[in-house]
Amino acid sequence: MEQNTRIGFIGLGIMGQPMARNLLEAGYALTVWNRSQPGIDALVKDGATEGASPKDVAERSNIVITIVGDAPDVEQVALGDDGIIEGAHDGLIHIDMTTQSPSVTRQIAERYAQAGIELIDAPVSGGERGAIDGTLSIMTGGKREVFERCQSVFDAMGKTIVYCGLSGSGQVVKLCNQVVVGLNNLAMSEALVLAAKAGVAPATMIEAVRAGAGSSWALQNLAPRILDGDFAPGFKIAHQQKDLRLALELADQSHTPLPGTALVHQLFSALEADGMSEEGTQALVKALEKLAGVSLRE
Amino acid sequence: MEQNTRIGFIGLGIMGQPMARNLLEAGYALTVWNRSQPGIDALVKDGATEGASPKDVAERSNIVITIVGDAPDVEQVALGDDGIIEGAHDGLIHIDMTTQSPSVTRQIAERYAQAGIELIDAPVSGGERGAIDGTLSIMTGGKREVFERCQSVFDAMGKTIVYCGLSGSGQVVKLCNQVVVGLNNLAMSEALVLAAKAGVAPATMIEAVRAGAGSSWALQNLAPRILDGDFAPGFKIAHQQKDLRLALELADQSHTPLPGTALVHQLFSALEADGMSEEGTQALVKALEKLAGVSLRE
Repeated sequence: MEQNTRIGFIGLGIMGQPMARNLLEAGYALTVWNRSQPGIDALVKDGATEGASPKDVAERSNIVITIVGDAPDVEQVALGDDGIIEGAHDGLIHIDMTTQSPSVTRQIAERYAQAGIELIDAPVSGGERGAIDGTLSIMTGGKREVFERCQSVFDAMGKTIVYCGLSGSGQVVKLCNQVVVGLNNLAMSEALVLAAKAGVAPATMIEAVRAGAGSSWALQNLAPRILDGDFAPGFKIAHQQKDLRLALELADQSHTPLPGTALVHQLFSALEADGMSEEGTQALVKALEKLAGVSLRE
Repeated sequence: MEQNTRIGFIGLGIMGQPMARNLLEAGYALTVWNRSQPGIDALVKDGATEGASPKDVAERSNIVITIVGDAPDVEQVALGDDGIIEGAHDGLIHIDMTTQSPSVTRQIAERYAQAGIELIDAPVSGGERGAIDGTLSIMTGGKREVFERCQSVFDAMGKTIVYCGLSGSGQVVKLCNQVVVGLNNLAMSEALVLAAKAGVAPATMIEAVRAGAGSSWALQNLAPRILDGDFAPGFKIAHQQKDLRLALELADQSHTPLPGTALVHQLFSALEADGMSEEGTQALVKALEKLAGVSLRE
């Protein structure tokens, strides 16, 4: 795609705003739409044009990017009243960067095929920090030649961009990522609580374990925040639970027993019962602290 | 300790042999003992002296190092007939590098106190490769001043040497390490099987996931071996199970629920039932492949 590609951007939340801003900075003309007005105003101030609806955004753009809440939100924006499908025109590509269901992704792609719209699924990993810095990991699915036409658009938002296969494959890989992230988090949490209960300073345990075969992003990045009592969300429990629900739904559909992932989901459920949905995922350790009757921060 | 420190080394297996060799290369005089003769012969050929028994080794040494099978083996060598305790003399230090029970460690330390022997627990992580290269992680417990007297001996065998606290603390941290290693392995295994069942090439999934918040030593080092069909042990399932048994025993003694670790132990148990005790721990994925009715290598 050339830099004169006109891009539409729908979904201007914590992730969408900085991603859209990186596209503006890369020189793309941007038409934006959002369910609420403040997100739109922020981007218009930075040079974007306000669209009237997803349909209007599609009509004005070669590529429409969405990053909204979940599968039903994508379906609404894509196929609902005044949806993207109503703005179909020759060469239109929809890149959906929402983490959502692989099967819903494929259903939308099938509807789009009749209207001549190409769909690329492209969920991201890396959080708000990665969105701001333009260093997101982007996992993509759809036709390879369509993906390749979007390469420079992805380059403006991310660093590690992996083509994973046919429609829905980006979503599958993103859900695999959440399986790994969830269980690496449990690994760290069980070790922290065991150290504390067995009389060893958790910080000492982390120092020794993260140097070797136990090393992980979680131990490097989340464990120090836990010991500082910092449970502010990089990635909040409510969103982690949405993604684990999607992973377990995919597992169910494909007859794949995931006993560890199911356990992580249940432990987060206990935290949600205690009103912690808005805390960061590092609060998983609190579920184990409660079970073991210990606090790491006393 | 000075380089003229006389060291005794008991337990010349896969780990012990290269560790003892690194001590010889660092210039230490070494008296060795092993339950079977071939290990002794190999080290004597390299310049070590053969001891007649653990007692004899202790009498000839300032520091005796053990790295044997499990807690009962350490008890036998330390407190049994012709054991280290019978060779007690002024200033003798026993460094036990076996991964074994923190509570048995403390019991031996108490018996030793009456005989004037100091015990340091110092289990290692890093496998045969780390033992050969002298890059082991060493987690130590015992009196800090005794640990400090042994620093140059540890430096000859390892790279990351962490003092964890009073007697048994090195063992506690090693068991925490095994909790993390086991669950990071499960994280990788569940993601691999989910990708395969959902129609995405596992190699592609790994490429995308290991770059971000899902990264771990397991994904970097074990996943490629799984995809190559290489299940030779770096660290074998029988030893992983021994360590998980110790971790769950410690958890039980300290009333620490470890639901994820218990699950990993059960899945490895299924592999042992299938005769895979001698395979590497990366074979954990085979338990999930069997449950899901899929093979990653077809």
